[in-house]
Amino acid sequence: MKNKIFFELIHQSRRSRARVGRIHTPHGVIETPGFVPVATNATIKTVESSLINQLDVQLMFCNTYHLLLHPGPEVVAAAGGLHRFMNRPGPIITDSGGFQVFSLAYGGVADELKSRGKKKSEGSVLRITEDGVLFRSYRDGSPVLLTPESSVQVQKSLGADIIIPLDELVPYHLDPRALRRSLERTHRWEERSLIEHKNDPREQAMYAVIPGSVDMSLRERSCAYLQKLPFDGFAIGGSLGKTREEMIALVGQIVPLLSGDKPRHLLGIGDLPSLEACILFGIDTFDSAHPTKCARHGILFSDKGPINLTRSYWKTVHEPVSDAPFCREYSASYLHHLFKTHEVAAHQLATLHNVDYMMRFMRRVRERILADEI
Amino acid sequence: MKNKIFFELIHQSRRSRARVGRIHTPHGVIETPGFVPVATNATIKTVESSLINQLDVQLMFCNTYHLLLHPGPEVVAAAGGLHRFMNRPGPIITDSGGFQVFSLAYGGVADELKSRGKKKSEGSVLRITEDGVLFRSYRDGSPVLLTPESSVQVQKSLGADIIIPLDELVPYHLDPRALRRSLERTHRWEERSLIEHKNDPREQAMYAVIPGSVDMSLRERSCAYLQKLPFDGFAIGGSLGKTREEMIALVGQIVPLLSGDKPRHLLGIGDLPSLEACILFGIDTFDSAHPTKCARHGILFSDKGPINLTRSYWKTVHEPVSDAPFCREYSASYLHHLFKTHEVAAHQLATLHNVDYMMRFMRRVRERILADEI
Repeated sequence: MKNKIFFELIHQSRRSRARVGRIHTPHGVIETPGFVPVATNATIKTVESSLINQLDVQLMFCNTYHLLLHPGPEVVAAAGGLHRFMNRPGPIITDSGGFQVFSLAYGGVADELKSRGKKKSEGSVLRITEDGVLFRSYRDGSPVLLTPESSVQVQKSLGADIIIPLDELVPYHLDPRALRRSLERTHRWEERSLIEHKNDPREQAMYAVIPGSVDMSLRERSCAYLQKLPFDGFAIGGSLGKTREEMIALVGQIVPLLSGDKPRHLLGIGDLPSLEACILFGIDTFDSAHPTKCARHGILFSDKGPINLTRSYWKTVHEPVSDAPFCREYSASYLHHLFKTHEVAAHQLATLHNVDYMMRFMRRVRERILADEI
Repeated sequence: MKNKIFFELIHQSRRSRARVGRIHTPHGVIETPGFVPVATNATIKTVESSLINQLDVQLMFCNTYHLLLHPGPEVVAAAGGLHRFMNRPGPIITDSGGFQVFSLAYGGVADELKSRGKKKSEGSVLRITEDGVLFRSYRDGSPVLLTPESSVQVQKSLGADIIIPLDELVPYHLDPRALRRSLERTHRWEERSLIEHKNDPREQAMYAVIPGSVDMSLRERSCAYLQKLPFDGFAIGGSLGKTREEMIALVGQIVPLLSGDKPRHLLGIGDLPSLEACILFGIDTFDSAHPTKCARHGILFSDKGPINLTRSYWKTVHEPVSDAPFCREYSASYLHHLFKTHEVAAHQLATLHNVDYMMRFMRRVRERILADEI
């Protein structure tokens, strides 16, 4: 039987390992390399879906952790799945929920990646066992058990096109023995997830998560192990180092270990320099809340670098600063005014700009790969 | 010379003083009775203008006080006026700025209308003289002098179709002598405003403000005095009593004192029962932030009464709750979810619903007046 999701290689650059491809899904085609905006609570923050649908967003990322806690998978399932619930006709990818569970436990995401291992398992994570992870809901404090099987079941209910198995996220500073034990457990969790998924595959695909922190020997073990299992693609996750340079070096070593016939996703990376570097290694898709978060802070992406719309310079610039849908109707001066008066219409327009910018950026990247320019 | 703005009576109900008309302006026709949403900072809160432009909003209200303080009238003028600045092709009305200056001094709007006169002139209002009112900017604390002439000049720069002269807002509890003195000063201010306006009328019209608090003898004096001056319409403002019933009774007495050939606007009233009552007296337009404020609190207007979308009842209602543009794409369950997860897309969609609802409500009112049903 043909997989529901498959990767079609269109062009392999002659200059680098960059490639142009298409991921075929039941909800449409995703051109790669592609950027995947994050709609945590089944909406891109500050913009209702029908506006986003007017941009060329080919894959959307939703967070299982948040949707598990509200409205709950049973509500989304009764609505006919996430696509209908949030009015998105195109493909959707969800994560396992594990990243939020563990990163809330280790403090903020940045804290956790940079933590010295001091905040392990305190706070919202109550217990990590072979079975799964028990944590407290951030909404009402009630205990919730997330297991490999329950994460798959939640993602089944959500009905995402691409689902991701539960892995244990470890802090950056963890002793090698503990790291190895965690890695082995994650492998067992991923295998259990795959069994749960294959029991009732529906129209969904499952990517493997490549865990392993910054230890390349562990990453190699994971790649070797997980590639033997019938996953539909790979998602590189976990701690990727403390700096952009470390992350890029690590991704550059991991990608060649993955077979080329399946799509490769890099989790949670969305800044332009990282994208440009990792595309050259053959990463196909990237998700990140970075462009939409920047937008809410008044930072607009442009070919000449980021523009800070809150700076008083823009107060008297009466030309549009954006050629994105909606945003292009307004002058920089008006957008500046909305930011200075704390009107959320500012966030809305800037978000539409940055999401549109990312889509155009990736389109140009694809064209350049097709022309063997990169 | 024909006025830039004129009122055309289409139908006078045979059942009441309700009437259907058209206010012709340089930016288009306003059908009356009509509801006027409030775009304080040159945007309806949480919704960018091009979405509002897809609804049937025939007149929009902007606040001079806010636009004076940011971005400043010179910026809006350099942008080509408010219509271009905020991307609104249709008619706009601005107020004098006085209401916010005085109401901030007396506390919140509700406090001020209900105050016992204790908070007069303290806080942001520094001095009220024959010249005008000196107040502190809420943005940076700098002193700003608002005079009848400067208010007109600001509104000239903004380029609104309909402008309103400065009046002194008095607290509800003020002794009769002070009230009379204030009224006389407001008359002088309005006359100065009219002179300033007529010096350079441009494409704009000016409504008189009918001041006078709850004292009908003073309201009568104002109506008699202001009607002799060549204003293009009337706006009923000031304290209108402590309860809806008092307000309705007062408006019912004031309207018959105004000539029928000019439009009559009721300032700051937007709840449905008040609208229904005051339309019967012959009020033509109403502005209020009430429907959009309700929307941000999860209250959707409907023919069966207000719906509180934050109630858990809606969590599992998978049918749309709105037939408004944009909003109708989503189930009640999804909107409930957005409210419970504090996503501003909820505010956006609910605002579009309530503004659209008000427009449809007024359209039905016009049809009923035309049929002499009310």
